[in-house]
Amino acid sequence: MASLRDIGERALIDRVIKGLRGYAHIGPGDDAACIDINGAKIVVATDVVTFEKHMVKGMTMEQFGWLSAAVNFSDIASMGATPRGILAAVSLPPGTDENVLYGIMSGIDQCAEFCGTGVLGGDTKSGSGSVCGTAIGVCDHKVLTRSGAMPGDLVAVTGSLGSASAGWYAALNGINDRDAFSAAAMPVPRVREGLFLSENDIATSCMDISDGLSTTAHGICRSSNAGMDIVWESLPKGKGVDSVCKKLKMDAKDLMINGGGEYELMFTFRKEYLNALHSSDMEFSVIGVVTSGNAVNLVTDGKIAVMENKGYEHFT
Amino acid sequence: MASLRDIGERALIDRVIKGLRGYAHIGPGDDAACIDINGAKIVVATDVVTFEKHMVKGMTMEQFGWLSAAVNFSDIASMGATPRGILAAVSLPPGTDENVLYGIMSGIDQCAEFCGTGVLGGDTKSGSGSVCGTAIGVCDHKVLTRSGAMPGDLVAVTGSLGSASAGWYAALNGINDRDAFSAAAMPVPRVREGLFLSENDIATSCMDISDGLSTTAHGICRSSNAGMDIVWESLPKGKGVDSVCKKLKMDAKDLMINGGGEYELMFTFRKEYLNALHSSDMEFSVIGVVTSGNAVNLVTDGKIAVMENKGYEHFT
Repeated sequence: MASLRDIGERALIDRVIKGLRGYAHIGPGDDAACIDINGAKIVVATDVVTFEKHMVKGMTMEQFGWLSAAVNFSDIASMGATPRGILAAVSLPPGTDENVLYGIMSGIDQCAEFCGTGVLGGDTKSGSGSVCGTAIGVCDHKVLTRSGAMPGDLVAVTGSLGSASAGWYAALNGINDRDAFSAAAMPVPRVREGLFLSENDIATSCMDISDGLSTTAHGICRSSNAGMDIVWESLPKGKGVDSVCKKLKMDAKDLMINGGGEYELMFTFRKEYLNALHSSDMEFSVIGVVTSGNAVNLVTDGKIAVMENKGYEHFT
Repeated sequence: MASLRDIGERALIDRVIKGLRGYAHIGPGDDAACIDINGAKIVVATDVVTFEKHMVKGMTMEQFGWLSAAVNFSDIASMGATPRGILAAVSLPPGTDENVLYGIMSGIDQCAEFCGTGVLGGDTKSGSGSVCGTAIGVCDHKVLTRSGAMPGDLVAVTGSLGSASAGWYAALNGINDRDAFSAAAMPVPRVREGLFLSENDIATSCMDISDGLSTTAHGICRSSNAGMDIVWESLPKGKGVDSVCKKLKMDAKDLMINGGGEYELMFTFRKEYLNALHSSDMEFSVIGVVTSGNAVNLVTDGKIAVMENKGYEHFT
């Protein structure tokens, strides 16, 4: 027998999908699924966060609730959809103080309000401490997926890289870095950015960086049957990365390329849209180019090397 | 401080709802939420089942998967909606045999197929063994809620009562009763029945009996600001109830009134629709009448007594 640990989350998902009857218009396999209901393109995504794996040391229950909502709205954002609500199933030990539940739900509600929507419903059960969120949205324009990147397209990311990961390690080691902590504890779902890319038909592919840049690059390349050259010097370094890495003797490059919990968007686009992007108020950086073949490379100082898929992998 | 155990799931849900900004068209507070998206009435529900609380002794992983989907489709059914897909977030210990995951997903897929739809996506995480399902549906007719019961309406249930609970105890005690086991392990979401009640504008209220008949009766009465007289002799006794109760020296009345895991629908309707219901191929029984006031009573042998809310309550 092989255990889940032996196989790892990404390979497991592939095997599960092969065993299912095909049903959805888009997904499983993208950040969210999309189905047509009475002419509306409804986008839905579900993601679990747990006290054990996702609780940043020192975070409040409101922040944990925010995080549990943000990871789901991020999946809606990466499809170019508008959030229309969230469901939250909260599992907690029966001896938990009731205020823990109210704090989590308040954080979810706040994140939903930030994303222009609200809490639709949920469930409460006894368990070891987790929130299973399900976000729902609607896409009135182009649905963004992982699979449309074409050789010659440019590769970009919203915001910056590494702060969330730096914030996680800083908190774990008692280092006070407000920017990094905030990036880890209260990530901002890139709803406005996803919508802009969808409405203006700019992105050829899109995916959120929840498990790290390298995993996202591999995800888009695999779904698009393409490769990527990403230029190290183009990567936007997030606040706190250098100072935290210096204190903890960690490699900033590793955090920026393989650190999870980022929730920025990676997207590809045809280069004639570069001006439109620059004219917008979107915070983004061009970090590379889509290539033919299927190699995912990191170009550093002009030298090409393989960028391994070393992002966060559950179970393993 | 008060713990979740001190307060119980139903009171907790009330308190959580009070703390949220109002957002959804219908719900939180009903079996599912309903939002209008581009003119479509989208219905969504989320429910967690766990190995610890919901695994019927002897059930296969396929059956556990079926159950995890059925509880969610049942919530879609009780709103009178047509299922359009399900998401499943599966949490399992990392050392679990991969076939456990495939079995669960296959069971979910089978239940979705039975309900005329499919698996849209999901998530896998390490955890102690649970499935958080989210079902989505659309209602093209009247959305059924808990709140429309009017004095003088008749009260009815689909199918029969007590089998699922009998099946649970039978399995736990090594008694082989195929009908009862099947009712517990593979409940049938009453999608066709909910749809019939919605399409023909028959039901004034509807709720599934997931936590027992008494809890459902109280739920409808409270939301509708009404009471109910339920007649014991009218309750349809399910297969296996008598034989299992005899062997285990259990009270059949208690199983039928307070036993959880039933997933039949309780609904109320104006009595002029009785003929329409009898002309349909729906399996149902009239079990009582809606009254003014807010007392929920059980009439046995012509004698009235209070029917306490003794259904399954999480945390306590």
